[in-house]
Amino acid sequence: MPYEKVPGGVCAPQGFLASAVAAGIKTPESERLDLALIFSETPCVSAGTFTTNRVKAAPVRVSQANLRNNEIRAIIANAGNANACTGITGLEDARAMVDSVAKPLGIRRREVGICSTGVIGLPLPMKRILPHGETLVQGLKSKNGTKVAKAIMTSDTRHKQLAVKVDLGGGEVVTIGACVKGAGMICPSMATMLCFLTTDADVPRPCLEKVLLEAVEGSFNRITIDGDMSTNDTVLALANGASGAQCIQRGSKKARSFGDAVAYVLKQLAKEVVRDGERVTKFVTVQVKGARTYLDAKKVAEAVAKSQLVKSSWNGNDPNWGRIIHAVGYSRARIREELVDIFYENLPACIGGLVATTPLEKLQAVVKRAKFTVTIDLNLGNSDYEIYSSDLSPEYVDFNRSEYAYWNQARKDGLVE
Amino acid sequence: MPYEKVPGGVCAPQGFLASAVAAGIKTPESERLDLALIFSETPCVSAGTFTTNRVKAAPVRVSQANLRNNEIRAIIANAGNANACTGITGLEDARAMVDSVAKPLGIRRREVGICSTGVIGLPLPMKRILPHGETLVQGLKSKNGTKVAKAIMTSDTRHKQLAVKVDLGGGEVVTIGACVKGAGMICPSMATMLCFLTTDADVPRPCLEKVLLEAVEGSFNRITIDGDMSTNDTVLALANGASGAQCIQRGSKKARSFGDAVAYVLKQLAKEVVRDGERVTKFVTVQVKGARTYLDAKKVAEAVAKSQLVKSSWNGNDPNWGRIIHAVGYSRARIREELVDIFYENLPACIGGLVATTPLEKLQAVVKRAKFTVTIDLNLGNSDYEIYSSDLSPEYVDFNRSEYAYWNQARKDGLVE
Repeated sequence: MPYEKVPGGVCAPQGFLASAVAAGIKTPESERLDLALIFSETPCVSAGTFTTNRVKAAPVRVSQANLRNNEIRAIIANAGNANACTGITGLEDARAMVDSVAKPLGIRRREVGICSTGVIGLPLPMKRILPHGETLVQGLKSKNGTKVAKAIMTSDTRHKQLAVKVDLGGGEVVTIGACVKGAGMICPSMATMLCFLTTDADVPRPCLEKVLLEAVEGSFNRITIDGDMSTNDTVLALANGASGAQCIQRGSKKARSFGDAVAYVLKQLAKEVVRDGERVTKFVTVQVKGARTYLDAKKVAEAVAKSQLVKSSWNGNDPNWGRIIHAVGYSRARIREELVDIFYENLPACIGGLVATTPLEKLQAVVKRAKFTVTIDLNLGNSDYEIYSSDLSPEYVDFNRSEYAYWNQARKDGLVE
Repeated sequence: MPYEKVPGGVCAPQGFLASAVAAGIKTPESERLDLALIFSETPCVSAGTFTTNRVKAAPVRVSQANLRNNEIRAIIANAGNANACTGITGLEDARAMVDSVAKPLGIRRREVGICSTGVIGLPLPMKRILPHGETLVQGLKSKNGTKVAKAIMTSDTRHKQLAVKVDLGGGEVVTIGACVKGAGMICPSMATMLCFLTTDADVPRPCLEKVLLEAVEGSFNRITIDGDMSTNDTVLALANGASGAQCIQRGSKKARSFGDAVAYVLKQLAKEVVRDGERVTKFVTVQVKGARTYLDAKKVAEAVAKSQLVKSSWNGNDPNWGRIIHAVGYSRARIREELVDIFYENLPACIGGLVATTPLEKLQAVVKRAKFTVTIDLNLGNSDYEIYSSDLSPEYVDFNRSEYAYWNQARKDGLVE
């Protein structure tokens, strides 16, 4: 751990408050926290990055519009319903959610970001959401960071947050806090997740944006559970400058220190997402070396990390390098079969495209572990890429067979026929 | 059935003989047929198409080389071992297999095509294969078509073959026979399969090649089970002209009739491959309409047909259109969310990007069937595409967890450490 870890998640940085309630969004009976608010006592600089899916949920559209004014200092988020494929009603609902907290907070609409996660295609049960606007604002406290991390969980089995103190040099210390949710629909082109990052650093918008995009490229864009990309992926960063540290100028040494810390925090959380993937039993780092170009390395890593057959074999503790090289072959990267080396940890499974002499038991002992690294050396150039993947279990498929329960509830609520 | 079906598979056309033996390639104890030979009594015109995987098995390389001379009239094929990632030894083994039948047949090496299917990365157990060269030649009969279809099976649960008589007009009748294997590693860019097509039509090479490529584009390039593409995919077509019908000229009406029949045969067999997919319970036709371009329609169809989450929901009888539209959104095709309609059979599940009013039970009744069509209308243009897919079952993952048994046998055979 290169940084001092502190408690509090998104509330760890100075000046950030939060609250969360159980609104019963999925079912009225549920007592799970599912509606949360983050708020900075002072104005913020904000940055964000969103799903590249052409089907975008209403909250994504609203947050993207609000982000343009660079005044977001509050985020309202819910689990249990994605408010995606909900048309004009969905947009109106998202705006009404924004209003429900903007008014009691005494701020403008455009100062609020909004995120939803859950089932696609069902209208939000607004009658169970709107009454909580005031409750959320009244409940704001500087100790509720963990509650936010819990409220955004869907199929996650545990909440995921991290806060660190960063020494920028010259005795200037800032704090970065973040929480994330995501366990399925996780794909390299922006994983299906929500992530909120807060900091009391004083960062101008262009610098915050650059830092955030680079950190996402090294973290959430490098994880895959099932290769599906969602309609709601959102990463939002708020910086309120409340630490009193000097403004971080783009390109400065401080900006690098700050950027490294943000990258570290998001990478840790991204790995947590894979570890908590739906019915996942293994965390696998797929490392590609010796590619002709960065893009080739990325293609190979993604093809291997996404292959259903490769992931199935990991689930079965089978060090099946044949399936790995077959995915290398169809990745469309430039490769030469007779130069490809494949290692489980540092044990060669395949050298020069041929079976290596490592005894099978030794390879199997690696794949039996809950965490291991597969290295693919293309021996063609100097480009590398690393991606974090998981196995695919029969239980994953079983878990994802039906969302029928959601629809039944929506019908009880009179939201669909 | 627009054609008269005849028995005999690849031996249905005149002048084709076949034989198959149980060589014990996977394990010596096995009594399954796993080594087969097809032979035309007279010289042939030949055409073929192969995997686009950059990792190509030795038999693929040998067949590609032999095909250049356009003299292939025999095919030797084995199941149980793919002879892929086996380097120089693999090439030598493939050539030795070719020789083992070329010699007793009294033909040249280049008149033999070769195909292997099975586990990747293990050397062929040649001591159990080579002695069968003469047996195969001695066993050649015109009634052994079905044996070939059986001998190339791997995880297939049933053999797949079809032969039809085609009236080319003017009283000229030719016969087309084919068999195919494939149940896993099935992906739209050439499914993981072997297919042998024989005909007693008299077809010049350019015409046979065009007919074959078009038929593959409409059949094996349109099926997906798990999105993985293999190292061994091969389709080989042999035409010996033994029917006595006049030579089919490219561009003629007869060429169209012949091409239609080949396309029909391969499409039926491609559908059979999906139906027999590993632990598959449903055959799903994904039909895309109203795309701006052919490529856009294809992108959408492939994204939906390959989505792990969509396929899992079909397995659970869940008419989950939210997952379908999310795959439409990440397909990279041009779409407008508010124009997308999704139907299960002719029942609307989503209209204009929003939930339709069809009662859930009715949609569910469709998804419960063993066979149904999902139609996605993008309402943007006039381009269509259709693909044949399946569900993804927990049992598929379980089935593919380990190929360890293969490796144990290879060790017993002294082929690996």
